[in-house]
Amino acid sequence: MGVRAYLDWNATAPLRPQARRAMEVALDLVGNPSSVHADGRAARARIETAREQVASLVGAQARNVIFTSGGTEANTLALTPSLATGERQSRDRVLISSIEHPSVRAGGRYPPQLREDVPVTPEGVVDLTWLAERLDELKGSAPMVSVMLANNETGVIQPVAAVAERTHAAGGLLHVDAVQAAGKIPCDINSLGADLLTLSAHKLGGPKGVGALVLASEDLHIADPLIKGGGQERGSRAGTENVVGIVGFGAAARAALAGLAEEAAYMQRARDRVEAGLRAASPAAVIFGTEAPRLPNTTLVAVPGIKAETALIALDLDGVSVSSGSACSSGKVAPSHVLAAMGVVPELALGAVRVSLGPTTTEEEIEIFLNAWMKSVMGLSKGKRGLAA
Amino acid sequence: MGVRAYLDWNATAPLRPQARRAMEVALDLVGNPSSVHADGRAARARIETAREQVASLVGAQARNVIFTSGGTEANTLALTPSLATGERQSRDRVLISSIEHPSVRAGGRYPPQLREDVPVTPEGVVDLTWLAERLDELKGSAPMVSVMLANNETGVIQPVAAVAERTHAAGGLLHVDAVQAAGKIPCDINSLGADLLTLSAHKLGGPKGVGALVLASEDLHIADPLIKGGGQERGSRAGTENVVGIVGFGAAARAALAGLAEEAAYMQRARDRVEAGLRAASPAAVIFGTEAPRLPNTTLVAVPGIKAETALIALDLDGVSVSSGSACSSGKVAPSHVLAAMGVVPELALGAVRVSLGPTTTEEEIEIFLNAWMKSVMGLSKGKRGLAA
Repeated sequence: MGVRAYLDWNATAPLRPQARRAMEVALDLVGNPSSVHADGRAARARIETAREQVASLVGAQARNVIFTSGGTEANTLALTPSLATGERQSRDRVLISSIEHPSVRAGGRYPPQLREDVPVTPEGVVDLTWLAERLDELKGSAPMVSVMLANNETGVIQPVAAVAERTHAAGGLLHVDAVQAAGKIPCDINSLGADLLTLSAHKLGGPKGVGALVLASEDLHIADPLIKGGGQERGSRAGTENVVGIVGFGAAARAALAGLAEEAAYMQRARDRVEAGLRAASPAAVIFGTEAPRLPNTTLVAVPGIKAETALIALDLDGVSVSSGSACSSGKVAPSHVLAAMGVVPELALGAVRVSLGPTTTEEEIEIFLNAWMKSVMGLSKGKRGLAA
Repeated sequence: MGVRAYLDWNATAPLRPQARRAMEVALDLVGNPSSVHADGRAARARIETAREQVASLVGAQARNVIFTSGGTEANTLALTPSLATGERQSRDRVLISSIEHPSVRAGGRYPPQLREDVPVTPEGVVDLTWLAERLDELKGSAPMVSVMLANNETGVIQPVAAVAERTHAAGGLLHVDAVQAAGKIPCDINSLGADLLTLSAHKLGGPKGVGALVLASEDLHIADPLIKGGGQERGSRAGTENVVGIVGFGAAARAALAGLAEEAAYMQRARDRVEAGLRAASPAAVIFGTEAPRLPNTTLVAVPGIKAETALIALDLDGVSVSSGSACSSGKVAPSHVLAAMGVVPELALGAVRVSLGPTTTEEEIEIFLNAWMKSVMGLSKGKRGLAA
């Protein structure tokens, strides 16, 4: 087997070397961070350093970072009617955009009858006009709104600051799932106007199995922890901390922040090259969301007549790892709920292939992908029939 | 600073070398286990190997192992009214022993009015007579019962098989928190008669931040996942898996099973030496639970007139890490709920120091501890006043 091309960074990113080194050192930490003795304090100190590093990535206070087992747990924790602020003890409903990740779409601890869908435009952008009108109707009921910063399938960046303005004007709270955006574009909790922000380590070069829910203010309080028991994470999340994972998350967050502008510029050049190659291979190729601002690393493409499922198998055999949208829900072959919300017809949606790059994606990997795409998917090599032939 | 003595294994155990090596290798796994390409399948394969290893430790089927972020999450997941078996879709109440870990005492998703306390004897053993009578009264209501296999503070082993027999006779389901017992004593889910069993990696030499809820049968189904979103863990627990942590858990479980008898015998000899030293240092020393079967590694001791809080600080300065009971709830100085349930008066309970050993505890560490205990706690060295002087 030759060199593989891993172009599925939105599913999970390879571990950054800084995270790996920090984790290898942390494997030696013996103590439980809740223990008061020297061994416990040493583990505690490393967690608090990581908390500062993660907070810095999003411009938050370290004390408002709640470490979780990942983005999914953070989203489930965030979406609860029992979010208390000074003046108000609960939220009577949640408005969820129709392109959110399944862990947000699941609604957390809101029962189905207290959830409402927020539609998106054909470009995959939250429909601000609809949202503003609905929030006007709900004024005084203190709703919760959940809109992601960037979509994991299309890469389309959402107008979160505008959503925040309208949400706050209605007395609501805004939750932002920034899992796919953080580390790729600037993500400042205050500029965004988010009240709660979800992060996942493994999407930005940290380990899988750790994430965070970040609060904009100490005034915000989750009255019902999801995971109950000890007093860890200031009472918001019980359980002995994933020390090695948290340390890796902190190191990855720090590296991602330091390299943000440079990495984004590099990925965008690489992404443009991928898209030029795709268009050259087939003028009929549809790249989704190109009229909206997008993440610098994500391309969602479909070619009429080609099934993503078949294309992925062919590409995998050629040494290329890409995805057909979200990798988070295993085994299912169904049209993407994101493309459905954008009004894409199922026949085209079932052809959508996501190519997502990272800061260490090489030109060679892009060549491997484009060659495999032309040969095995488009059937453009001589004497060989591709899927489109 | 000289050699330290880490005698707080019940708070968290150092990583086993087998777990460390497996984790270092797993840091190189690039893919998301939910991805269908080769990179994803490689990560998936390692998780499934770990699932077999964890299942073997407790005599379960691999497919009935649900990986979680730790024992606390597993306990919170387990304790839900929505536990469905073939004939019955819900459980109308839960009976919880009064010496359970705080994550069980919190009652999971049972509201307070649906929880009942099960008392214990002065030796710290669940009161089987009380339980049998209560279960007789509840016959037909299909209750849930939660009793731990071994207590984390006293090390007292509970009569779980007898509890299971009575629970099942009443049509109930038994949850067993085996976090502190697994890897120290045999722990077979079928011999115990447990319907659900909680494990934590870091108590048996795996990493912190990973655990499992093990089901005895495929017929048992948790209708309401705690963490919602993707279809991971057969729909019982959403979120991208903690690949590195799970791999470490599997390797630790395998090593713990292989070494079980030998390690237990070694720890018991070491523990007997600790207890002989404590009794020699003070005939007034009270060691809790000695009339009941105990874990081979745990000593909970109190000396009248000595406060644990002060003793721990003195011992820490002497290079000894021990605990005053549970390390899971940070910062609080309150008498142990376990000793309170056993009827121990608060003055004595506030003096309780837990010494917990592991399979690599050295004679030198025990000497360091006993010398520090005699000098700094008992004040038995010449010309120096200890806490007891």
